[in-house]
Amino acid sequence: MIAQTPTPPYYAVIFTSVKRPDDSGYSEMAKLMEELVVKQPGYLGHESARDGLGITVSYWDSLESIAAWKEVSLHKMAQKTGKERWYAHYSVRICRVEKAYEFP
Amino acid sequence: MIAQTPTPPYYAVIFTSVKRPDDSGYSEMAKLMEELVVKQPGYLGHESARDGLGITVSYWDSLESIAAWKEVSLHKMAQKTGKERWYAHYSVRICRVEKAYEFP
Repeated sequence: MIAQTPTPPYYAVIFTSVKRPDDSGYSEMAKLMEELVVKQPGYLGHESARDGLGITVSYWDSLESIAAWKEVSLHKMAQKTGKERWYAHYSVRICRVEKAYEFP
Repeated sequence: MIAQTPTPPYYAVIFTSVKRPDDSGYSEMAKLMEELVVKQPGYLGHESARDGLGITVSYWDSLESIAAWKEVSLHKMAQKTGKERWYAHYSVRICRVEKAYEFP
């Protein structure tokens, strides 16, 4: 559940979202996106949790890999539908992971 | 619930965790840490969600502010107790936020 990522530096996309009350179709699309993203070049892993606020962090080898995933046609369709139907609000932050440690 | 943060660059700490089955005392400590962290110099906001996996992302103005928060004595006590009692596994990633956008 915690993503196994390489020694930094690498990149992270922090996607934070609040959904609308009616999110019909969302879980099917989320499942499809999970199946697609793991096949993307440069994808390193992701972590996700939701309890009201949803946070998904995906990890990547480069900014170019992040940009390429954003342009995948099924993902673009999901982004469009997300704005039209599912999300009340979201935030995307693109980060360079400088340092990492874990327990144990 | 989604943190209002300034124009990048700024910093993010991604804290991902899996708790042990018995986490007595955890929620009280988490509440105390939330009260303390918002008073820290350089703190910009945070976002949190848990459904099995817990993800907390805190935002900071600098690496120095992140390092200072790590050394706050009550926070050090919480970190120690976390390792001894509450967490089965956790990961900390320190990141530089390069770019951000939001909807709407």
